[in-house]
Amino acid sequence: MAVLRSYVSGGWHTPDAEGVPLHDAVTGEEVTRISSAGIDMGAALAHGRRVGGPALRELTFHQRANLLKALGLHLREHRDELYALSARTGATLGDSKFDVDGGMGVLLSYASKAKRELPNDTVYVDGAVEPLSKGGTFAGQHICTPMRGVAVQINAFNFPVWGPLEKFAPAFIAGVPSLVKPASQTAYLTARLVELIIESGLLPEGALQFVAGGAGDLLDHVTGQDLVSFTGSASTAQHLRAHPAVVRHSVRFTAEADSLNLSVLGPDAKPGTTEFDLYVKQLVTEMTVKAGQKCTAIRRAFVPAELIDDVAQAASERLAKVTVGNPTSEGVRMGALASLEQREEVRRSLKSLLDAGHIVFGDPERVDVVDADAERGAFISPVLLRADDADRAEPHEVEAFGPVSTLIPFTNVDQLIDLAARGQGSLAGSVVTGDTAFAREVVLGVAPWHGRVLVLDADDAKESTGHGSPMPQLVHGGPGRAGGGEEMGGMRGVLHHLQRTAVQGSPKVLAAVTNRWVEGADRTATEAHPFRKSLAELKIGDSVTAGPRTVTLEDIEHFAEFTGDTFYAHMDEEAAKANPFFGGRVAHGYLIVSFAAGLFVSPEPGPVLANYGLENLRFLTPVFPGDELTVTLTAKQITPRENAEYGEVRWDADVTKQDGASVAKYDVLTLVEKEAK
Amino acid sequence: MAVLRSYVSGGWHTPDAEGVPLHDAVTGEEVTRISSAGIDMGAALAHGRRVGGPALRELTFHQRANLLKALGLHLREHRDELYALSARTGATLGDSKFDVDGGMGVLLSYASKAKRELPNDTVYVDGAVEPLSKGGTFAGQHICTPMRGVAVQINAFNFPVWGPLEKFAPAFIAGVPSLVKPASQTAYLTARLVELIIESGLLPEGALQFVAGGAGDLLDHVTGQDLVSFTGSASTAQHLRAHPAVVRHSVRFTAEADSLNLSVLGPDAKPGTTEFDLYVKQLVTEMTVKAGQKCTAIRRAFVPAELIDDVAQAASERLAKVTVGNPTSEGVRMGALASLEQREEVRRSLKSLLDAGHIVFGDPERVDVVDADAERGAFISPVLLRADDADRAEPHEVEAFGPVSTLIPFTNVDQLIDLAARGQGSLAGSVVTGDTAFAREVVLGVAPWHGRVLVLDADDAKESTGHGSPMPQLVHGGPGRAGGGEEMGGMRGVLHHLQRTAVQGSPKVLAAVTNRWVEGADRTATEAHPFRKSLAELKIGDSVTAGPRTVTLEDIEHFAEFTGDTFYAHMDEEAAKANPFFGGRVAHGYLIVSFAAGLFVSPEPGPVLANYGLENLRFLTPVFPGDELTVTLTAKQITPRENAEYGEVRWDADVTKQDGASVAKYDVLTLVEKEAK
Repeated sequence: MAVLRSYVSGGWHTPDAEGVPLHDAVTGEEVTRISSAGIDMGAALAHGRRVGGPALRELTFHQRANLLKALGLHLREHRDELYALSARTGATLGDSKFDVDGGMGVLLSYASKAKRELPNDTVYVDGAVEPLSKGGTFAGQHICTPMRGVAVQINAFNFPVWGPLEKFAPAFIAGVPSLVKPASQTAYLTARLVELIIESGLLPEGALQFVAGGAGDLLDHVTGQDLVSFTGSASTAQHLRAHPAVVRHSVRFTAEADSLNLSVLGPDAKPGTTEFDLYVKQLVTEMTVKAGQKCTAIRRAFVPAELIDDVAQAASERLAKVTVGNPTSEGVRMGALASLEQREEVRRSLKSLLDAGHIVFGDPERVDVVDADAERGAFISPVLLRADDADRAEPHEVEAFGPVSTLIPFTNVDQLIDLAARGQGSLAGSVVTGDTAFAREVVLGVAPWHGRVLVLDADDAKESTGHGSPMPQLVHGGPGRAGGGEEMGGMRGVLHHLQRTAVQGSPKVLAAVTNRWVEGADRTATEAHPFRKSLAELKIGDSVTAGPRTVTLEDIEHFAEFTGDTFYAHMDEEAAKANPFFGGRVAHGYLIVSFAAGLFVSPEPGPVLANYGLENLRFLTPVFPGDELTVTLTAKQITPRENAEYGEVRWDADVTKQDGASVAKYDVLTLVEKEAK
Repeated sequence: MAVLRSYVSGGWHTPDAEGVPLHDAVTGEEVTRISSAGIDMGAALAHGRRVGGPALRELTFHQRANLLKALGLHLREHRDELYALSARTGATLGDSKFDVDGGMGVLLSYASKAKRELPNDTVYVDGAVEPLSKGGTFAGQHICTPMRGVAVQINAFNFPVWGPLEKFAPAFIAGVPSLVKPASQTAYLTARLVELIIESGLLPEGALQFVAGGAGDLLDHVTGQDLVSFTGSASTAQHLRAHPAVVRHSVRFTAEADSLNLSVLGPDAKPGTTEFDLYVKQLVTEMTVKAGQKCTAIRRAFVPAELIDDVAQAASERLAKVTVGNPTSEGVRMGALASLEQREEVRRSLKSLLDAGHIVFGDPERVDVVDADAERGAFISPVLLRADDADRAEPHEVEAFGPVSTLIPFTNVDQLIDLAARGQGSLAGSVVTGDTAFAREVVLGVAPWHGRVLVLDADDAKESTGHGSPMPQLVHGGPGRAGGGEEMGGMRGVLHHLQRTAVQGSPKVLAAVTNRWVEGADRTATEAHPFRKSLAELKIGDSVTAGPRTVTLEDIEHFAEFTGDTFYAHMDEEAAKANPFFGGRVAHGYLIVSFAAGLFVSPEPGPVLANYGLENLRFLTPVFPGDELTVTLTAKQITPRENAEYGEVRWDADVTKQDGASVAKYDVLTLVEKEAK
């Protein structure tokens, strides 16, 4: 039997060892063997740092995003092959789509968000310029640059495709190379995924390495520039977090661990309501998808005491319809656990849980299966428990990582929130209610213990992605027992791989470091109007000053009449005087920016294609009849698009009046051609 | 001799023990004694959670900010008393101001930034709404709520006032109670600070507790809702980070440790240039302020090889003028180290450093002092070293936590960046150069190893706060050896104390949870125009729809002529057709928003006082002559001010045309009275 290969230090490594057998979860047959014997872990990390990191840092955020998108589309072409392997892990086709399509979805989502939310540059500018001096010669700006190490990603067995990809995508966008180490049980699926990625030739060498088998002395080699992210059990998370090298070098460590996730039914959601049905349906889904082997699955089902009998009955009826068996067979709703060892583990946990409750549905020792051998395959029945004494410890502390949930009664919101906290930190929670006030109270009450909380009701049920689905746009991870980490969350997950640095200096220096014009930096009044310059010609700081133009009382009255904006501060001297800010009739803000545009525009066709927006407009000083306006427009940020003949230019607009005071400041957003035509 | 009291569990605790003597750094006399004997650490944490947390969470961010400001102003009144105690720690008046005034500055800065950057509410809304569905019925929004535990703050001996305050301020704004544990050596100064705070009566009980003496079993009692932040040595940081309870509960742990901070001289900055003088002056300042006992002080002074003799000579000349002695005596520039033990520690480190270099200035064993006994007080001479072999390990690894720096030559930028990285992570770095390109190259090259980098030049020198000064607006902390933590950084430091939670639901639910109107949530078209409502009457979702108004070609031409904005896309049909986005003459964006204002305005005097700005304006669809515009304005966010008769209202503006397509979307910002007059 072949042994899984690893991809390290620029090539495929075949272990010179027999390896440990990995078994088909359904049939018990040996699928392959696994071993990391002979891999030089230190060399692999060094390769990532020396080859992968520099290659990634050559690319801008947008260029990396384009590669990620291409990779996502490439992998989509190979879905069927991955589904087939996935079935051997015990997954139904639905489970496999959750894992495989979900993983590719993360790549595409990160690609598209990175292009929208990050600059087409190698440095991320974080937050606003911080003024640090009265005279304006000294200021601060936070920047974020890629860590110079490797993101070591240690994954769990339950999502062999999504797991690695959701960690890889933000690291890749950040410009940090990844080293992926899957859990052994299902590593053959991750191995095939990595083969497809490497064979695609889309990624720079060193951007992705893969270790099949034990981690060996991998963590001994991490430094303060490396990162470690882990998904799996809370006990392993603790072990890794306290690893001497992780501690010594203050290594960024993020963990995402199993947790006692809750789902709450609102007291309004009585039998017959949409929300009652949604609650029961979701509970059964969360118990059975991936045979309940999801870190986010519902373990604690909190139900108003007066509704618990109804929920128990409705859930049992639904569970009775769940066909268990060979995941490739028609009609099978729930496949096998990932291994026989997992089944033993689940049965052990169930014993503990039974100290505090009783079984409402299912039998941990017996299950009818379709097209499979219930003992050779890692099959188990869904088991719904009920713990009438909500104060017992077990339901809040013991997790059976399989198709197992416990119904727990509650009588009021305060008690519910106290009980929720006893889980000591969860990845995901949900509240099913049609009562918005109840939803608000529960969400804000349980939020400190949660990474994500879903509110399900008749309004969002059709489009909801459900309790158990982490989304690339949202953070995944929870405090305390859930590991204390955060992954994804859109660009938050990218920032986790960047070092934030506060840069202090003169505006000129800040502009040079960030590639953005900063208030107080040099302006260049070039001979040609900056609107006559293509992106190839335009430089940060290029500017035009135009004016003055006097604003007359007639202008104000005319504008009021023309637009209909007859607000009293423009029209009625006496009333305007009574206003605490004006002291007399003033020009419309919209008049000021319209006149400013009239001053700075260069009307003939040219590289500037459109003004697509405006940001951060503040009116700073009132403009009275007779005031003279001057405007200075300065190129602030230039963002060529990777896949178009144009890009964005952000201009700083500063409208002043005769005494030099700023009247209005704002950013003008334009689309400008890359090359003059 | 008295023993320092602690303030825990709602009262002052006098230890029933002899305590350990603390000595005056200058005279060696006993100042007081210290002991934490008899403190129930678990009870103190429980008190913070049970009493302090709920009291703080009753307040909005702005209300906490007001208390913090009042506290800062109150403490200012007692500066002299703190200066006097500070002198006994070995600090000159200048040093004391750095510590005492710096600490109060942090309180005031946090108070003012919190009011500008946080809502007047108890929930922080983080980032934008994330659309999660095509139909818009399901979306996500990150919120941040206070952790429900205690921020355990373990401080270093070198800043007994600033240290506790810079950790306390962000925790307090966040709504998380603090437990302050100072290092023993200088704890009597922190104790007095805490007495002043408690006596002021400004803070809710439980918001601040204080433990003088050893931490005992404090950390055994932390949970996943508590936080631990530490400032001090790298070795203690490691010890705390690996504490079993910290690891078990994934406790948020942040450390700020001594590091081998660098300062780089640019090759352009030859003797005679402003930057050369700035470099030398800053180096000497950083060596001597607080007798070099600053985590941020310059330890590695990188100088172009050809300039190292000049720098050594100029720095020596300056150092020769530094008078060492009793910090209260006139003319004394540098006081004592904090204790005789510290002096021994510095001498030990110096021995190591001397393996790789030689002394340019000073004698570790001998110093002339003014008005003091050089042996009974913890005095030491500033010592400037020079390590001609930049590759030796010691200068990059050994820190002498006193008035000690090492000159190190470099020959090119790549080598410099490699050498910088050998510090394995620093709090602060600086580059002194008049060459902007050099500054950019060094800043971006060393950024991944730094929390803060200062660029000093002739432009910013006068206003610069200097290499060694952390600023409340900027992050403080660095990767790797510097502890891997982040403190302050404005609201970033507040967010560190909040749990971020992704909330998923229908727009209506998201609006209810966040107190902000969200696209897709209910709009209420009330009988009265929303501009006629005071803050007391206005509700999120109140809206007005106005229009339609037809935009005619005459309107466009008239607007062009009136404002001067004759851009071809408005004026020239043929040219506009050639534009890739328009396909014909279109209305000005400014015309659209002006007409919209004319439609939604309610002109008579009323609660709406002013339109002070506009945000996130995007033009989404071109408007052609003949199109009809309708605008809907919806109250999105209401922020009453604590100290004024009015507050801010943010309105969602959506301009659509006859087919329902959005033409422009933006936020209108207004000031509105709290009560109708």
